[in-house]
Amino acid sequence: MGGSLSLALKKYGFKGQVTGLLRSKKSLDEIQDKCITNHLLLEEDFLKNNLWTKFDLIIFSLPVDLTCQKISLLPDDYDGIITDLGSTKKEIIESVRNKFPSAHNYFSSHPMTGSEQSGALHSKEDLYKGKLCILTKEEHTSKEAVSKITNLWKFLECKTIEIPALEHDEILAYLSHGPHILSSLLVNWANKSEMVNNYTKNSPLPLSGGGFRDMSRIAGSNPEMWEAIISTNKEAILSSMINFKHDLDFLIEILRKNPQEQDGFWKNYFENSKKSRDYILKL
Amino acid sequence: MGGSLSLALKKYGFKGQVTGLLRSKKSLDEIQDKCITNHLLLEEDFLKNNLWTKFDLIIFSLPVDLTCQKISLLPDDYDGIITDLGSTKKEIIESVRNKFPSAHNYFSSHPMTGSEQSGALHSKEDLYKGKLCILTKEEHTSKEAVSKITNLWKFLECKTIEIPALEHDEILAYLSHGPHILSSLLVNWANKSEMVNNYTKNSPLPLSGGGFRDMSRIAGSNPEMWEAIISTNKEAILSSMINFKHDLDFLIEILRKNPQEQDGFWKNYFENSKKSRDYILKL
Repeated sequence: MGGSLSLALKKYGFKGQVTGLLRSKKSLDEIQDKCITNHLLLEEDFLKNNLWTKFDLIIFSLPVDLTCQKISLLPDDYDGIITDLGSTKKEIIESVRNKFPSAHNYFSSHPMTGSEQSGALHSKEDLYKGKLCILTKEEHTSKEAVSKITNLWKFLECKTIEIPALEHDEILAYLSHGPHILSSLLVNWANKSEMVNNYTKNSPLPLSGGGFRDMSRIAGSNPEMWEAIISTNKEAILSSMINFKHDLDFLIEILRKNPQEQDGFWKNYFENSKKSRDYILKL
Repeated sequence: MGGSLSLALKKYGFKGQVTGLLRSKKSLDEIQDKCITNHLLLEEDFLKNNLWTKFDLIIFSLPVDLTCQKISLLPDDYDGIITDLGSTKKEIIESVRNKFPSAHNYFSSHPMTGSEQSGALHSKEDLYKGKLCILTKEEHTSKEAVSKITNLWKFLECKTIEIPALEHDEILAYLSHGPHILSSLLVNWANKSEMVNNYTKNSPLPLSGGGFRDMSRIAGSNPEMWEAIISTNKEAILSSMINFKHDLDFLIEILRKNPQEQDGFWKNYFENSKKSRDYILKL
């Protein structure tokens, strides 16, 4: 995500210097010659030399738990602008509140984009173009931070919307985190069927069609990042999964009924699904 | 499906004549000039004039319930080859058994392909190429039917596998019918969240990312066809959905635990999901 952001800045003619921080020497060596950023630094060296104040803008592109750790390390007198690309907001905003008791320049970002491939080597300059970026304030976020971060995303051709932390996390439980769990559940569930497992072994091609392939695309992607997402949005995800279960229970009761009692139910249900999908995806 | 099959036959140089049967005058008029088949006929006229025996091969490209109805209308002395493209097999094979007490030429097909767009106007000559076709015998299916239908699919560059009716229907409950219900449930469930619904209204772009879009692609497609699929595979789908619910219950219990008790669970779970997906999709 961070590498793609740097490439996008370059593409749109950003005049400043971009320094990429990497967590391992191996990652740093891998992208040394790729010209993704103007400079590269090991995170370890950055922290040891306390280089925060050398930068006007800091963007954390890290799993949420590590973002929270880094927020606690920010110097109290840091006067640059700060944001992150985290997928959950409650814990990040709490960390900002604990760090800064009064006005500060932290304005949190969640660009709704990504790829199954992580790491700077897979950076793409068009990853952000035309995408939505959700922005989240802490109570004391300065107007300057709001305006500069909003303009940064607009500069990269993103659209923006401001959503408070708790609302953000509930929405994402339904549109991203819950679906990620369900997609992963789906493939494990299907694979536990002996029939599926045995006939798959002997089939010249997968037994599944395009629907299953699409529904399972996100299953199992980036386990480390997703573990952090779930642990930082547990309550909202739990509540959304309990609601999913209630809805599933309802459909199971319908399936138990006699054919004449089900008459027309499914046609109607699928027609409503189409309307729900069109509404959510703005089709 | 039928229109695409005819275009594929033409593409691969099939020498015979293909007649397309349509259920409505409106559909017939729409494709009159599209040269999808050599001849077109209204189903009504075909049945009134009892034209079955004029054809060497009959392929039912209909919802499963209508396929079963048509099987019952086949002349007892029909000696051509017969197949269908139905998504469930138990009821079709039962209809074949009721129709033909001894040897017959019915060998059922289920090509694992399709599109959200139905109707002959959306025919595509490459819909079948490189796809799997599952074939299902009735006890008295003749060797001639097995060989001719198998060769037909190979001629269209499909791979084939033979799976008995009950096994087919259980596999499809996990890899297609259940996922279709879950995809439809997913969008209705998300849309019932007031947060999702309200913020979507005010957002310049959908709040969902690519994962949700992919998982919901099949939601609500072709409600009439899917109602027929569910009603003809109710038991297997019910049983698969009950298993899904048990697996979901297990994950809900994990989400209720304290963070330290969940430690490492999700990383491990997502890693297994990736393995399950790779196995099912033969990646």
